[in-house]
Amino acid sequence: MKNLILVRHGESAWNKLNLFTGWTDVDLTEAGMAEAFEAGRLLKVEGFRPELCFTSYLKRAVKTLNQILDAMDMDWLPVKKSWRLNEKSYGAIQGLNKADTAAKYGDEQVLLWRRSFDVQPPALDLHDERSPRMDPRYNEIPDAQIPLTESLKDTIERIMPYYRECIMPAFNHHDTLLVVAHGNSLRAIVKELKGMTNEEIIKFNLPTAVPYVFTFDDRMQLTSDRFLGDPEAIAAKMQSVANQAKRK
Amino acid sequence: MKNLILVRHGESAWNKLNLFTGWTDVDLTEAGMAEAFEAGRLLKVEGFRPELCFTSYLKRAVKTLNQILDAMDMDWLPVKKSWRLNEKSYGAIQGLNKADTAAKYGDEQVLLWRRSFDVQPPALDLHDERSPRMDPRYNEIPDAQIPLTESLKDTIERIMPYYRECIMPAFNHHDTLLVVAHGNSLRAIVKELKGMTNEEIIKFNLPTAVPYVFTFDDRMQLTSDRFLGDPEAIAAKMQSVANQAKRK
Repeated sequence: MKNLILVRHGESAWNKLNLFTGWTDVDLTEAGMAEAFEAGRLLKVEGFRPELCFTSYLKRAVKTLNQILDAMDMDWLPVKKSWRLNEKSYGAIQGLNKADTAAKYGDEQVLLWRRSFDVQPPALDLHDERSPRMDPRYNEIPDAQIPLTESLKDTIERIMPYYRECIMPAFNHHDTLLVVAHGNSLRAIVKELKGMTNEEIIKFNLPTAVPYVFTFDDRMQLTSDRFLGDPEAIAAKMQSVANQAKRK
Repeated sequence: MKNLILVRHGESAWNKLNLFTGWTDVDLTEAGMAEAFEAGRLLKVEGFRPELCFTSYLKRAVKTLNQILDAMDMDWLPVKKSWRLNEKSYGAIQGLNKADTAAKYGDEQVLLWRRSFDVQPPALDLHDERSPRMDPRYNEIPDAQIPLTESLKDTIERIMPYYRECIMPAFNHHDTLLVVAHGNSLRAIVKELKGMTNEEIIKFNLPTAVPYVFTFDDRMQLTSDRFLGDPEAIAAKMQSVANQAKRK
């Protein structure tokens, strides 16, 4: 039996301010740190023992993972960090308020940028200080691979090579893997594992800091997927994410 | 120019209680978390940009590194964790109070266990619940390599293969490396780099959470070594470590 555990990072400062974040390296809030620790406590109580962890290059994911490992008393676990697990790039609307953007461009346009499968937000200018091509952490990545904006389709295409070549092959040596990343980067993996259509994945909202456990049999056939924790609290978290663009 | 930055972990709960810690996985105190963050702030202010980090399997080192990376805004940096960088094993006296142990066995004996080069404290029993051979995190390491007690000489012999085969070769691809570990595991590296005698290294006390920077020229000849921060505060920290076994 094999387990793949997905966790979306806890509340970040910009989730709270209702800003488009994308590749901006925003910190967790105190509440985000606490819900991340709680995710680790749940995993420990349920007896999960990951052997290898994956996360993105963004601190809200790294710190969520650090909190989880600390709560599990497994700070020593190996961690692989990859830019490929970063959140969807929101291009030139990164840093803008979601409600203001909706007021300016219309709810429909913003919903397209947030929730369509293949519509990209306006791209960052090459020399925009927000461009990841200006950020030394991405120096070793060819410019052409570093997005200036992305649709969900683009995000999925960025992540899937890493999923196929680095994450899933690790099951050859391990029984339990933990991936801590972002709402949209994890959608790529959920879509693949559950065979969702483009329309289905768009409507699917991952709750923050809730362990989502996919279980496989020894032939790597998916046998179950479930969230850990209180179902009502999880449903409320999912609804809260879905409502974000509507806030005034 | 190449830089190797060594940092001893911040204050742990058992440092504060004056207990022998060794391989016991004790957490940082609040003060320890704060001094670790300050070490990162200093590194950032002085313009250091590590490219690869190493730490032990013990949470007081891992969390010190996490704090440093967070203060530097470099949570995304790759980190390699190894049991070989763990603290010296204090064997069967792990968990005992340093002053009580001195009262029971005499100052001289305890000073031998703490500060001789090749005298081992009494070994842990194979089935002692404190034995690392019972701890699943060390499952992949052959039992014969997992210490039940260590002299400083043993600790150095455990660490040096990792230093030679994993840390120093990383300079072939990187200019700045960061190693966050423990008082005795870092002594092994300092002894090697400074060509200290056994007697010299015994008397050398690394301060907690102070970046110690070794600089090399392009032929990897050591050109300087220096602590970052306020010299008086550093001297006080070094004296405080040297005084620990004498406390009543």
